Amino acid sequence: MTSTVEQRLSQHGQTIPTAPEAVGFYVPVIRTGNLVVTSGQLPMVGKELMFKGKVGKDVHEEVGFHAARMCALNAIAQIKACIGNLDKVTRIVRVEGYVQSADGFHNHAQVINGASELLVQAFGEIGRHTRIAVGANELPLNAAVELVVWAEVSE
Amino acid sequence: MTSTVEQRLSQHGQTIPTAPEAVGFYVPVIRTGNLVVTSGQLPMVGKELMFKGKVGKDVHEEVGFHAARMCALNAIAQIKACIGNLDKVTRIVRVEGYVQSADGFHNHAQVINGASELLVQAFGEIGRHTRIAVGANELPLNAAVELVVWAEVSE
Amino acid sequence: MTSTVEQRLSQHGQTIPTAPEAVGFYVPVIRTGNLVVTSGQLPMVGKELMFKGKVGKDVHEEVGFHAARMCALNAIAQIKACIGNLDKVTRIVRVEGYVQSADGFHNHAQVINGASELLVQAFGEIGRHTRIAVGANELPLNAAVELVVWAEVSE
Repeated sequence: MTSTVEQRLSQHGQTIPTAPEAVGFYVPVIRTGNLVVTSGQLPMVGKELMFKGKVGKDVHEEVGFHAARMCALNAIAQIKACIGNLDKVTRIVRVEGYVQSADGFHNHAQVINGASELLVQAFGEIGRHTRIAVGANELPLNAAVELVVWAEVSE
Repeated sequence: MTSTVEQRLSQHGQTIPTAPEAVGFYVPVIRTGNLVVTSGQLPMVGKELMFKGKVGKDVHEEVGFHAARMCALNAIAQIKACIGNLDKVTRIVRVEGYVQSADGFHNHAQVINGASELLVQAFGEIGRHTRIAVGANELPLNAAVELVVWAEVSE
Repeated sequence: MTSTVEQRLSQHGQTIPTAPEAVGFYVPVIRTGNLVVTSGQLPMVGKELMFKGKVGKDVHEEVGFHAARMCALNAIAQIKACIGNLDKVTRIVRVEGYVQSADGFHNHAQVINGASELLVQAFGEIGRHTRIAVGANELPLNAAVELVVWAEVSE
């Protein structure tokens, strides 16, 4: 049986990808108590990084939106790999969105909305979360966006 | 009855502002277990961003200090909106301070001290917290500072 | 009696340094529930900052690796100062690695691996953690790396 979360994503034409492997000496997701936290997710499909460059110069803001959406899908995949059934999530607590930013780019909110909207499509009202959106001059592998998701889960 | 926290702030000539609305598709504050975490707070009064530009070039370090202080007041407003009575806070756990930094600016600590001192004025000894202070080349809306506060609360 | 953690570090020729003091108006480490979180640790020995400049220009990537390692040792020192015996740690939960990055530098993962490898040397399998590695255009005191560690501890 697929989870309600996966059914909702399916209605938006989305499926949960295979959880990407770590790109360094760390693990992609951990549970501590009732919190699950992912490592920084990049806009990867499998081992391929799909969105490189600085948002506001190399990467248009609307493309950055899609990059953030892809990061969020990867984060959901990590959470699923950690807890098995996504319906155990009781709240998406926090999103950290890092945007590799060109000089003078200030629309970080619009970019990270790509992740936030996807999370609400997936989890409904409990998908609504706190958020930081900040710029970085450079990100790992030249990724346009990096994203972390914190989720609260039931026993 | 006003909380002890609000009485202390009053003695420093401060009142808690109306909690600013989110500037994207997220919520400004969440409680999970005994932790309350805010979204990234900007130096806003209502809907108006008061401190724009890069600290160390457009914005003097001492002005950045006041921007950080304003972010901290907004964070306290969010926490109050979440838990009702600020005297339920048992500890300010963590402050994340992002400073939109001009080239060569390294006095992030002095800027974020504006938030840290305000939190100790408000909460006394339990207001003393861990902290990160980091630079960002660009922040949302060209804000000089962005700040997150994590608080521990009692039942 | 020294902890197992300190014995393991000793086998790698490492000893835990004196925990550095805060460089601003904050505390270096806090416990909330079963989580211990440090403030941002810099590559300091005592009061001296050992690695300054931008990684990828002033500081070679391999030197950045050693800076990250030094930050991790300081973080372990902070956790020890907080909980007394490092064998109370049940899991290293999360590492936040901020790399002061030159234009075009994208090997953040390789730099922060210096911290991650040290944590696994110290804690073994429970030292494996989630991680963010992000770039910053400027960091406090011109530090090459800043690092935060979150640990889960038993009662």
